[in-house]
Amino acid sequence: MTSIPYLALTPDSLPGRLSDISAVTEHLGNAPSSWHVKEVGDGNLNLVFIVQSPQGHVIVKQALPYVRLVGDSWPLPLYRAFYEFNALTRQAQRDPGAVPQIYHFDEAQALIVMEFLTPHIILRNKLIAGEKVADLGDFCGTHCARTAFRGSELSMESADKKADVALFAGNVKIPEITEDLVFTAPYHYAKMNNHTPSLDGLVVELRGNVHLKYVVQSMLMKFASNTETMLHGDLHSGSIMATDSDIRIIDPEFAQYGPMGFDIGMLTANYLIAYFSQPAHRGANLEDYQNWILSVIADSFASFNSEFRNLWKNERSGMLYPKSLFEDQGHSSEVACDATLKTIWQDALKFCGIEMHRRCLSLAHNADFETIEDTNTRAKLEARNLRMGEALILRAEMIENTQALCDLAQSFNEKDVL
Amino acid sequence: MTSIPYLALTPDSLPGRLSDISAVTEHLGNAPSSWHVKEVGDGNLNLVFIVQSPQGHVIVKQALPYVRLVGDSWPLPLYRAFYEFNALTRQAQRDPGAVPQIYHFDEAQALIVMEFLTPHIILRNKLIAGEKVADLGDFCGTHCARTAFRGSELSMESADKKADVALFAGNVKIPEITEDLVFTAPYHYAKMNNHTPSLDGLVVELRGNVHLKYVVQSMLMKFASNTETMLHGDLHSGSIMATDSDIRIIDPEFAQYGPMGFDIGMLTANYLIAYFSQPAHRGANLEDYQNWILSVIADSFASFNSEFRNLWKNERSGMLYPKSLFEDQGHSSEVACDATLKTIWQDALKFCGIEMHRRCLSLAHNADFETIEDTNTRAKLEARNLRMGEALILRAEMIENTQALCDLAQSFNEKDVL
Repeated sequence: MTSIPYLALTPDSLPGRLSDISAVTEHLGNAPSSWHVKEVGDGNLNLVFIVQSPQGHVIVKQALPYVRLVGDSWPLPLYRAFYEFNALTRQAQRDPGAVPQIYHFDEAQALIVMEFLTPHIILRNKLIAGEKVADLGDFCGTHCARTAFRGSELSMESADKKADVALFAGNVKIPEITEDLVFTAPYHYAKMNNHTPSLDGLVVELRGNVHLKYVVQSMLMKFASNTETMLHGDLHSGSIMATDSDIRIIDPEFAQYGPMGFDIGMLTANYLIAYFSQPAHRGANLEDYQNWILSVIADSFASFNSEFRNLWKNERSGMLYPKSLFEDQGHSSEVACDATLKTIWQDALKFCGIEMHRRCLSLAHNADFETIEDTNTRAKLEARNLRMGEALILRAEMIENTQALCDLAQSFNEKDVL
Repeated sequence: MTSIPYLALTPDSLPGRLSDISAVTEHLGNAPSSWHVKEVGDGNLNLVFIVQSPQGHVIVKQALPYVRLVGDSWPLPLYRAFYEFNALTRQAQRDPGAVPQIYHFDEAQALIVMEFLTPHIILRNKLIAGEKVADLGDFCGTHCARTAFRGSELSMESADKKADVALFAGNVKIPEITEDLVFTAPYHYAKMNNHTPSLDGLVVELRGNVHLKYVVQSMLMKFASNTETMLHGDLHSGSIMATDSDIRIIDPEFAQYGPMGFDIGMLTANYLIAYFSQPAHRGANLEDYQNWILSVIADSFASFNSEFRNLWKNERSGMLYPKSLFEDQGHSSEVACDATLKTIWQDALKFCGIEMHRRCLSLAHNADFETIEDTNTRAKLEARNLRMGEALILRAEMIENTQALCDLAQSFNEKDVL
């Protein structure tokens, strides 16, 4: 199928078009007429098919040449599948087992055939349903630390890292979405924005805070110009699939080089959004489940820090903070590791606050709040989320640790801030 | 000559090899036998020829496949001429008239034919000889502001800037020299290091300061991973040619994307090195000339800030700090400009301190100190320079403005710190 020009798959055309790819038939067998195809894409951008046969199953993900959520008035290049493939390959090396296994990649068709995760579901749906996932914080914190460290010049050869920066610099149009929708659109009256109507006053106040907008734009500059490591770039609770005890990270098509605190900061925002939305979704077990979400945040950073320190000690082979300057001279480099982790923490808090804002103010809202039908309740909970985001952006330097972060979330959770 | 493989030019072979290039004969005429060729390269890396004829003159600069200062044991790719050509082209657009005009570029021969600047001499030689250059600070500060601003996403389209980041990411081996010789080698016992022997105690102390090494390495991380703008990358007093009133910036083969404070910080270091070395070069007019050097530093930053503010107001068309978030909502963006300039200032001070160190501790020392034959005098003056560098690296946050910077230089200039 590589010889034909790009053509979007349909459930009907898929078996015929994939039946001569051995990496596919290896999993599904050689009788395409027995394959059952179901289109399940519920994201904003792509076609996603589950293909099942008596022998097995695979996921087929194909990019569309436009933003699915908006339609063909918003074209989007197919090359994002190429970056997703490259990102998945690197993530698999840097944190083995954390991402789905790839069976086949076709650049011209912008198509990846990969492992079907079952009975995994999207983490966001579990968070809305009040289901716990064992070791969620540990897994994600460790994953973020491994990808951050092993994709940076703390670990990589500089020549390899620079070549990779050049490669991913081609992924222009996808990071552009983040640059606009996350960092800019929420803070002015952009056409595609929407928010719950009773938030009007709060939104005017946030858009009127010049210092807030300065800090957000300084973080955009950091996001766009700081190529510390290869990011997932879109690590929210819809980019994680989980059972009660098994977890995978998916969908890295927003991959780019960026600051080490970005992924864990975005993910934390999505946990906090889940946290603040809970009163609309839970009954008697509300407090228990909200506390569990906070424990996931605390575990994420604890595991990030502990794995980062471990890699700092055992895999620091890049040009940054070389042993020749520290250990080889009998000097501990712990102070440098501490300071690096502190910068990551403060960046993460600011990125977190920004993500909390955009999910209520910009185009792509989260189901956590969107599924709350009573708009008064929704506005009340979203307001807590927006105020906490504001506090994180403006006062990151004063939040010492995860205990302080979780305390802050609890204090906003008890307030009527609208 | 593009059809033959790379071959280093000699004064004898040059006329024959360039005589069929119209961009050259336009300046020198069609009688190569009348051309007079003189090899004048006094830098560390390349061949440089002045070619004169009865009709005119040009400079021919050709990269060698190794570091000239060290020899063929240190190979260095010819592609640096390609990056120099690309950097010169961009600098000419961003600050017209600031760099020599290019007549011809031959990628295979790693060769650039360009404007012969006369009667310009290398600024460093003027500083050693005690000669003033009118408007030096204004010119350089304005140049650094224009290249910093116009090469960043404050001004450029993001897609163009990202493509350019990818292009310059290929210039691996040249920035590698900076990464090692500037940021790392000075702080350990690297093979090619050398320093004036009586500095031994001070050198041990600097190499023993773990916090200092942490800050230096955090600036290396910023240098290597922060692609804010296209840098000259090697802006020292040997990369500036001047008469008493005309100035040009040359030799941007170290061009890379990096932080906006880098170039002006490196240049300031070279002024401070000139300043501290003066007692060995001047007689009666010492104080006057030293004060003039400090005024150049003050003028550089004043002009940088004023031109940057001007461009912020009039050319802010990139995605960063867009008018939609500020002016279009009736909000001034001055606080954001102030904060951006403050970050540039503090980065510049730290890069400055690091450059001051490496020019006394690493491989490529400056003639300002190296031409001082009496090693006791040299060590005394270098020690002041090293101590001031240390202060800049460790206490940049406490140095408010250029007055404080110049006061600090004066206080070290009066001390016996060895």
